[in-house]
Amino acid sequence: MSTSNLEAKRHSLSHLLAAAVLEMWPQAKPTLGPPVDNGFYYDFEFPTVVSESDLPKIQNKMEEIIKTWNTFARFELSPQEAKAEFKNNEYKHELINGIATEGAPITIYQSGQFRDLCRGGHVEKMKDIKADSWKLERIAGAYWRGDENNKMLTRIYGLAFDTKKELDEYLKMIEEAKKRDHRKLGKELDLFVFSELVGKGLPLWTEKGSIIRRELERFIVDEEIRRGYHHIYTPDIAKLDLYKTSGHYPYYKDSMYAPIKIDEDEFMLRPMSCPHHFELYKSQPRSYRQLPMRIAELAKLYRYEQSGELSGLLRVRSFCLADAHIVARSDQAEAEINGALDLIEYIAGILGFKANKDYRYRLSLGDRTDDQKYYKDDAAWEHAEGVLRNVLKNRAVENYEAAGEAAFYGPKIDIQIKNVLGKEDTAFTVQYDFVMPKRFKLAFTASDGREEEPIVIHRSSVGAIERTIAFLIERCGGAFPAWLAPVQIKLLPVGSTHHDYCQKLKTEFLDHGFRVELDDANETIGNKIRKAEGEKIPYSLVIGDKEIASNNLAVRKRGQKEISSLPKEKFMAELKQEIEYKK
Amino acid sequence: MSTSNLEAKRHSLSHLLAAAVLEMWPQAKPTLGPPVDNGFYYDFEFPTVVSESDLPKIQNKMEEIIKTWNTFARFELSPQEAKAEFKNNEYKHELINGIATEGAPITIYQSGQFRDLCRGGHVEKMKDIKADSWKLERIAGAYWRGDENNKMLTRIYGLAFDTKKELDEYLKMIEEAKKRDHRKLGKELDLFVFSELVGKGLPLWTEKGSIIRRELERFIVDEEIRRGYHHIYTPDIAKLDLYKTSGHYPYYKDSMYAPIKIDEDEFMLRPMSCPHHFELYKSQPRSYRQLPMRIAELAKLYRYEQSGELSGLLRVRSFCLADAHIVARSDQAEAEINGALDLIEYIAGILGFKANKDYRYRLSLGDRTDDQKYYKDDAAWEHAEGVLRNVLKNRAVENYEAAGEAAFYGPKIDIQIKNVLGKEDTAFTVQYDFVMPKRFKLAFTASDGREEEPIVIHRSSVGAIERTIAFLIERCGGAFPAWLAPVQIKLLPVGSTHHDYCQKLKTEFLDHGFRVELDDANETIGNKIRKAEGEKIPYSLVIGDKEIASNNLAVRKRGQKEISSLPKEKFMAELKQEIEYKK
Repeated sequence: MSTSNLEAKRHSLSHLLAAAVLEMWPQAKPTLGPPVDNGFYYDFEFPTVVSESDLPKIQNKMEEIIKTWNTFARFELSPQEAKAEFKNNEYKHELINGIATEGAPITIYQSGQFRDLCRGGHVEKMKDIKADSWKLERIAGAYWRGDENNKMLTRIYGLAFDTKKELDEYLKMIEEAKKRDHRKLGKELDLFVFSELVGKGLPLWTEKGSIIRRELERFIVDEEIRRGYHHIYTPDIAKLDLYKTSGHYPYYKDSMYAPIKIDEDEFMLRPMSCPHHFELYKSQPRSYRQLPMRIAELAKLYRYEQSGELSGLLRVRSFCLADAHIVARSDQAEAEINGALDLIEYIAGILGFKANKDYRYRLSLGDRTDDQKYYKDDAAWEHAEGVLRNVLKNRAVENYEAAGEAAFYGPKIDIQIKNVLGKEDTAFTVQYDFVMPKRFKLAFTASDGREEEPIVIHRSSVGAIERTIAFLIERCGGAFPAWLAPVQIKLLPVGSTHHDYCQKLKTEFLDHGFRVELDDANETIGNKIRKAEGEKIPYSLVIGDKEIASNNLAVRKRGQKEISSLPKEKFMAELKQEIEYKK
Repeated sequence: MSTSNLEAKRHSLSHLLAAAVLEMWPQAKPTLGPPVDNGFYYDFEFPTVVSESDLPKIQNKMEEIIKTWNTFARFELSPQEAKAEFKNNEYKHELINGIATEGAPITIYQSGQFRDLCRGGHVEKMKDIKADSWKLERIAGAYWRGDENNKMLTRIYGLAFDTKKELDEYLKMIEEAKKRDHRKLGKELDLFVFSELVGKGLPLWTEKGSIIRRELERFIVDEEIRRGYHHIYTPDIAKLDLYKTSGHYPYYKDSMYAPIKIDEDEFMLRPMSCPHHFELYKSQPRSYRQLPMRIAELAKLYRYEQSGELSGLLRVRSFCLADAHIVARSDQAEAEINGALDLIEYIAGILGFKANKDYRYRLSLGDRTDDQKYYKDDAAWEHAEGVLRNVLKNRAVENYEAAGEAAFYGPKIDIQIKNVLGKEDTAFTVQYDFVMPKRFKLAFTASDGREEEPIVIHRSSVGAIERTIAFLIERCGGAFPAWLAPVQIKLLPVGSTHHDYCQKLKTEFLDHGFRVELDDANETIGNKIRKAEGEKIPYSLVIGDKEIASNNLAVRKRGQKEISSLPKEKFMAELKQEIEYKK
């Protein structure tokens, strides 16, 4: 198979990398060097500082050595022999001890003069690796075995593909992704900032970024209300007791912030909103007529992230989740889950994410044997997983199953979105919960007057607002559709004699509810157009004598060279439609 | 003057109360008994438990004694004589010591057989106090001298006015206020709830309450954006360092919650948003062209309130402030303050608060001699107070000045609103700040290229959302105008044969963006109307055979008995107008 062949190439190249490093730094200690998604790496303890400027020299050395290599020979050694071979390398000794404890054979692979402790998986012939299909990429620090209590090693990364063409394509994609990086665009387009004094992982939204956020939030809230959700507000803090009652505390305590003592009670920044919603549900007796009760909130949540993990809007310490909890009779579950997926597909579509291309579904299952991680109730798990499986069977979106990925209170459907680099990640989920209703003693009066226990569906329509906007920025490269664009129209007077007319136009557009800016700088019209294009404003209107005389507008659409002349009313009507229908 | 005469009556009645109590409980120790806003009280240490059921007996005794009193005689005593007179009463001894230390004369007033330590201020003749113009009201606990380390005494309150008519009016007003109490109506109309598990002072907004809140918030945000504010989002927490930089920490630390340690830093739930806004301002260099920069936010804030002080939505531990900070050149200050007051008056008007009737302005000044409480810069205080005074001179709203009520960073204009009981309170403020710009090193490049320091205006357009909604509930008694009403239309089918038609009507109203409910219970139309009236829904539509045949609607407006017949389209058009213009 071609993939595993590619993996073999990548693995073989990591041997080659270690060989080159050892020729150049005989005192270096090689540790581990596996293949990865886009190539390979190898971790070394170096006797001296090695930097990115050394990469070309190492690459040259690798190209020199590869010519002398043919194939890989396998040797089986005793632990003593292996340790003797890697004397003074405590890392290899640790690995050898590990393999010996497992009872596995200790094998060494040799190519040319270079021998390495290895479980195998190489190319048949080094000639199978095409020239220019690989290159060293970068250097980073990495703790031995990923543990921050261990020594920091030097990791050298290489990229490797089957052909030069594929490598070039990958490099181009990386280049494009860098240009679209939401942190870079967020700064260039002045959408959000961070402040050292406020704190890491806590974005401050500028006027422009806030417009995007507000439009998105209002769209979601209005759409959810249209679909019968009760959109509510609950506090962002709660007593620790609440999370003990919900049973979240033991599972979440490491990602919760420390408690705040107020009078005699301890309060927590909430890591989730479900317990608040359940408390609201319980504020009065409920009847079967009120079910399903879809309780939704733009909920601000707080979860601990290590400072090194924080990244722009993608990993933050406080985020706003488009959250909801549907309290329902169990025979309503299937319809409600379908309803939640309908909403998710609709909103994803509006935001430009296409089913099967940009996202697919994952059915995340529990594990009946793991009572530690999952609530014990085999029958309930069987039933809930069956419901979710049935839902997915009847939908048009590709799906797959993953064992051991469920929440502790039930199975879930994860919406797996691909980012610009093609990496897939869980963006949001629909969860079936049969545990919380018990913990919170949720109840309703059935039609026969008896008290029954409902089930709960946890879902997010669009995930965390911060993360969704990061996705959006990267997807559209900052060129937002008109309904989200912070500035929809830019007025570009040709000369200073056209300023007054532009001022009047601006007021007119504002009165019609458009977001408009006027560029009255003393610059050429060419410069003004370039600037508006750089700001990724959907429509630039060039205003000179002709426009004033005709009452027409010279309209330049973002990304297009030609300028078309349009009656003002027609332009406004068309833009209004474009905004209303979120095109 | 009539008011001070009323005060004399109230004071005289407190003597009468003490005389009655001592006749009934000779072992009781009277302490202090002043006149108050609506009557008088007296604090006693009782030898036994006294409860509200004792009030009629005390009142009877007072009515008996008053007949025997004529006027008040004054006696001046030495401290020794006074203490001998009040032997065994350590409270009076403490008062006597205090008066002696002041060097004031120690006076005793006597009426009938009753003598009390007193500075004077009684009626000429007890006959001036009209029968039935006063009555005992209630009993409460009160610490001696208001200090919780002291002994708890028993306080007896009485109401007293010039005439029986005024007393009756006051009692009626209290009765009405109780009916309008936002805590009571909030529960009856299901607008918000509290949960013991979530915590005190942390309201959870129901679906209905959330509609009111969302409509109000969107109205404010949209109106502020229309007036050139940048509406932003910033985090609700920040590093403690931020509040040390701002200088808020020493002034606010008692009302801030305890810090939360995250990694090496301490984070605070923010008690105000100014420092966040300044950090955003500072995220890039600013030019005079960008000023005034009006930075606004619906900012969630956290301030400590003692558990005993918490009250419904009026005193909470977390609230959402319609906040803004205007960074401006100092020559723009007057125009910006006027702009802020224009906005305040506009929004107050929409919410039904009338200038001079419901609110007036207070100019809160600093104190040049108090460097502890106020930032020392006499010239800056003079200038800022002058600007504010000038603004108020030219406005149509009544105003007065109050010394020593300023913020530590500058003087302010407080908007003083009267509640249902006529009590005046600061609802929101416009503050002139010349200190923060220095502390945060705020700057802008002036037109001549030099760096200058701006001033900052802190203002709230409508105060805390929670408190404003509490005011609103009490003002309209829960009968919200249509634009805020959680349900705008209730459909009342006369019989079950009309349900289908009502279902269709409901969908039609929903599609037009109205908030509508259908009452399909098996009840008489009279009951349904009464229920809709109890829920204070603006419009009830009675639907029977005639309406289905004619396509007309039988419209019953809230609070009106008559039902009028209207073509459906006309009703919708009129209601749309009513909502849009926030009538």
